[in-house]
Amino acid sequence: MIILLDMDGPLADFEGGFLERWRQKHPELPYIQKHERNTFDVKEQYPEENVKFVREIYTSHGFIENLPVIPGSIDFIRDVIELGHEVFICSTPTSTYDPNVIEKYRWVEKNLGKDFINRLILTRDKTLIRGDILIDDNLEIKGKLSPVWKHIVFNAPYNKNVGEQFRIKEDWSNWKEILLK
Amino acid sequence: MIILLDMDGPLADFEGGFLERWRQKHPELPYIQKHERNTFDVKEQYPEENVKFVREIYTSHGFIENLPVIPGSIDFIRDVIELGHEVFICSTPTSTYDPNVIEKYRWVEKNLGKDFINRLILTRDKTLIRGDILIDDNLEIKGKLSPVWKHIVFNAPYNKNVGEQFRIKEDWSNWKEILLK
Repeated sequence: MIILLDMDGPLADFEGGFLERWRQKHPELPYIQKHERNTFDVKEQYPEENVKFVREIYTSHGFIENLPVIPGSIDFIRDVIELGHEVFICSTPTSTYDPNVIEKYRWVEKNLGKDFINRLILTRDKTLIRGDILIDDNLEIKGKLSPVWKHIVFNAPYNKNVGEQFRIKEDWSNWKEILLK
Repeated sequence: MIILLDMDGPLADFEGGFLERWRQKHPELPYIQKHERNTFDVKEQYPEENVKFVREIYTSHGFIENLPVIPGSIDFIRDVIELGHEVFICSTPTSTYDPNVIEKYRWVEKNLGKDFINRLILTRDKTLIRGDILIDDNLEIKGKLSPVWKHIVFNAPYNKNVGEQFRIKEDWSNWKEILLK
């Protein structure tokens, strides 16, 4: 099996990292707790006058690079590779690509080792990538082609009440039931 | 048709850019003229004691970003899109990814416009990318899968005497004959 793995969400804790920085940097402004998040794009849930500050955080130097690892994700990768499957990280850079793209490579090197950058694919259209499965927290993955992979949803507060796909829990505890059944 | 386009070679003049910087920076050292190049990887054709200087040049800040455009390539992209085909740039970052990856995005933005970064795919394994055709100067494109694209070779001195595939000339003058026949 070739497993494509989205980065922000299943692997790197974008939501947690964002909330921590937001509260540090803007303690006087309202914030949205993790379980209350209901849009895929975090900035859509903040009041318009604060959107520029939201964007400022996730485009700032060091933000992507220092995102915490989602517990269970590294073990999942190690285990599934040991079972003989292939894993590639399939990530969409933000349109403000500087420093986003370089920090994605740094994050992978830091958390998965230098060799794993051979398994990082950056693309704004995931339908062009071949694989058996794509694990992604985004419910709406659109592109030029009809995908060849099966979409497995990585659970998040903002995708809980939509769709009937199989879901991997936020702590990766059920991946064997979902992927190896 | 989905056309995948390698970046260094068909689009960005890596060879020309390298040679110019090499002669500027090391006027006392031997150099290899464009028509004499016979290895895909430029550093393999330089004497061992100079390999570190070769690598220094193509990993230096500003090198990738400022590579000249291959004449005819931008017109090819414009024309083929106008005919209704899709073009994606499919590029392999160097393992020393900093500043390589960020400068690839900058190069695309500068020479093809901001929107074209939606059509840039970075991958160390091109066999995972879907497309009808891959135009690439590298004769040996290996990866985890058997490719779905047909490989069209972009001519270069180091790939002239190998293989029987169809070839696009260095000035792109024959692309219609090759791709639309």
